[in-house]
Amino acid sequence: MKNLLVAQSGGPTVAINSTLMGIYEFARKKVNKIYGARFGIKGLLDENIYDLSKIIDKSNLSLLPQTPACALGSCRQKLKDPNESSEQYENLIKIFRKYSINYFIYIGGNDSMDTVTKISNYLKISGIDDIIVVGAPKTIDNDLFETDHCPGFGSAAKYIATSICELERDCSVYSLPAVTLVEIMGRDAGWLTAASALSRLNGASGPSLIYCCEKVFDIQSFFNDIDEKFKQKNNNILIALSEGIHDKNGKYISEIGSKNYLDEFGHKQNAGAAKILDGFVKKEFGCKVRSIEINTLQRCAAHIASLTDIKESIKLGEKAAECALNNMCGEMSTIIRKSNNPYQVEYKSAPSNLVANKVKRLPDGMISESGNDVTIEAIEYLKPLIQGELKIQYKNGIPVHANLFQT
Amino acid sequence: MKNLLVAQSGGPTVAINSTLMGIYEFARKKVNKIYGARFGIKGLLDENIYDLSKIIDKSNLSLLPQTPACALGSCRQKLKDPNESSEQYENLIKIFRKYSINYFIYIGGNDSMDTVTKISNYLKISGIDDIIVVGAPKTIDNDLFETDHCPGFGSAAKYIATSICELERDCSVYSLPAVTLVEIMGRDAGWLTAASALSRLNGASGPSLIYCCEKVFDIQSFFNDIDEKFKQKNNNILIALSEGIHDKNGKYISEIGSKNYLDEFGHKQNAGAAKILDGFVKKEFGCKVRSIEINTLQRCAAHIASLTDIKESIKLGEKAAECALNNMCGEMSTIIRKSNNPYQVEYKSAPSNLVANKVKRLPDGMISESGNDVTIEAIEYLKPLIQGELKIQYKNGIPVHANLFQT
Repeated sequence: MKNLLVAQSGGPTVAINSTLMGIYEFARKKVNKIYGARFGIKGLLDENIYDLSKIIDKSNLSLLPQTPACALGSCRQKLKDPNESSEQYENLIKIFRKYSINYFIYIGGNDSMDTVTKISNYLKISGIDDIIVVGAPKTIDNDLFETDHCPGFGSAAKYIATSICELERDCSVYSLPAVTLVEIMGRDAGWLTAASALSRLNGASGPSLIYCCEKVFDIQSFFNDIDEKFKQKNNNILIALSEGIHDKNGKYISEIGSKNYLDEFGHKQNAGAAKILDGFVKKEFGCKVRSIEINTLQRCAAHIASLTDIKESIKLGEKAAECALNNMCGEMSTIIRKSNNPYQVEYKSAPSNLVANKVKRLPDGMISESGNDVTIEAIEYLKPLIQGELKIQYKNGIPVHANLFQT
Repeated sequence: MKNLLVAQSGGPTVAINSTLMGIYEFARKKVNKIYGARFGIKGLLDENIYDLSKIIDKSNLSLLPQTPACALGSCRQKLKDPNESSEQYENLIKIFRKYSINYFIYIGGNDSMDTVTKISNYLKISGIDDIIVVGAPKTIDNDLFETDHCPGFGSAAKYIATSICELERDCSVYSLPAVTLVEIMGRDAGWLTAASALSRLNGASGPSLIYCCEKVFDIQSFFNDIDEKFKQKNNNILIALSEGIHDKNGKYISEIGSKNYLDEFGHKQNAGAAKILDGFVKKEFGCKVRSIEINTLQRCAAHIASLTDIKESIKLGEKAAECALNNMCGEMSTIIRKSNNPYQVEYKSAPSNLVANKVKRLPDGMISESGNDVTIEAIEYLKPLIQGELKIQYKNGIPVHANLFQT
């Protein structure tokens, strides 16, 4: 019987351990051993390899869906071009042979799909057909092609929509005019920023203005937009914006404004787009301004995971394992949306080279013509992804997490 | 029959609407009308007054405990010294008479208890004994005297402990040495920062180092502490610190480091303690450093409210209403802890002048001798306050909030 190895890569999400669970559950009666490599492809090359049956048991398996980040650890390492240097690939094959690994599943984003593609190409060129490499998607950025949406995104979107609801409440307690700038992750794609609009689903105002990084950000239009909102007697203006908003020359707002931000040693500091605009808005309107960076929690707040996201992430793990066992080398498991109402999806796969190194941005139809909000089309796309709540197991007042390795 | 008026004041918390609910539920069959003033004492003076029976119904009443911030709005306004100017007080009495208000309950922190004390003194001096003013406590800072702890604090502590657990997961995915600095609210008192230690309750490492603002912060000792942790082969060092950490001269770290932080217009910007130390640590250790400001969400994340906090906040509202109806002018409702194991409290009251304008800091016994962690005594004090989860009502994937006023 054959062995399977799984590893996780790239930035953490709330759902990547659900995909691990899906792979493990699907494969464990169909293969001999399931190995896990710690710290992604880097750990695999270092032979940082564990027999998962020895570290996964009933209790920590059931906790994986409520455990954020990467239970197996991660890395950010690109493999070299096999045409330039094949050493890494030769080492990988040696390790696969040593552990009798015939299936390798790599969970990750567009960089990780580059790894899947390169290994798969190397295997093909080398005429090796008994080692199968397959990808499973993940990224809070929701920017992978070939899949309707990405594991981890729905939970991040739910966290952002909920947080914006709560921040709106917080902002609106005083009667004085005020602007609150909320910076949301997304350097190249504005999906998470768009998700801030989901805060309106139960009747709240939500952000007065939403700026996604797909559109050019013009500071004068921005002032006009705020002015317009104040004229509408909206005293508390909450603004959601992508970290990656940039001017017409493609220069990030965070860079433009940062020229005077020097740290103790005179180094230029990147202050973040919201922090930079904070100063501009204060100067222009003379009102109270607050800038909030929705921090790393947006990618790891498992306590408010989207049940839809978690269930789909498990399914995508199962699908990836199924692809591997069906010898579909170089594929990545995908979600195809069949309908919105009722929300229905099916699980397919696509060649990883169509995903690798590419960024799927918010389409024009999802951003309002004014460029300062999203459309109903965006809401309809986003809404199903945040539905449902995972029943979180708490102990001592805090959520319980799975520990695969003793720390 | 007599009328009662309630208002909310100061910074928002998760639990202040629970206290409003407690007051409303306790008093509604015992008084004629219950009024609410919007935007605190400022709104009261502007006669921004509403008959709550006309805006509170069964459905929004039951949603109050899961609605963050101040459903009635808030303000930050201190009344003038009655010896210098009695105009505000005369206006207040006029308004109370106009609406036949005999009971006024003000929910707030140490500034709001200044208001309660001043009005109560004025009533006494003026020989008015048929108007009773009473305070109900609230503050995420947990810095009020006379009460064992403060409504809103337990929920903020639960959010922080959970967030630190999740951030620790996020930080530990890579194998490279890294320092993560987490800044937590608290300019004068380190209670919330201490609560970061509750992240250890289920076996997680929690913060490697904790710096509360009660102790002098010395940058060289800070470097030594980090160095020590790296030597213990701890690769991922997560550090919790109060926004108010300061040097031996009382100067805030955020001020010390900010001298070079100039915005676009050359104004000095306050970059926050964690952001400032970020640069220092990078320079000293040359490793990856990340600074995270746990933002406003720590005071409004109702979706992860502590059930203990919510229940107690309701009880403190009931107790305040009871004090008012018993003509205990100038009192504030309080919690007295009877025992930790089992956790038992009782509800009492104390004169508001013992609370007004004072700050209760973390006692020495709760901070470790090294000054870079908290003691078991702190954990034992804090742990009961975050227990239990409120069953949150969700709709469309986000929590439902109570709307008392159409926006």
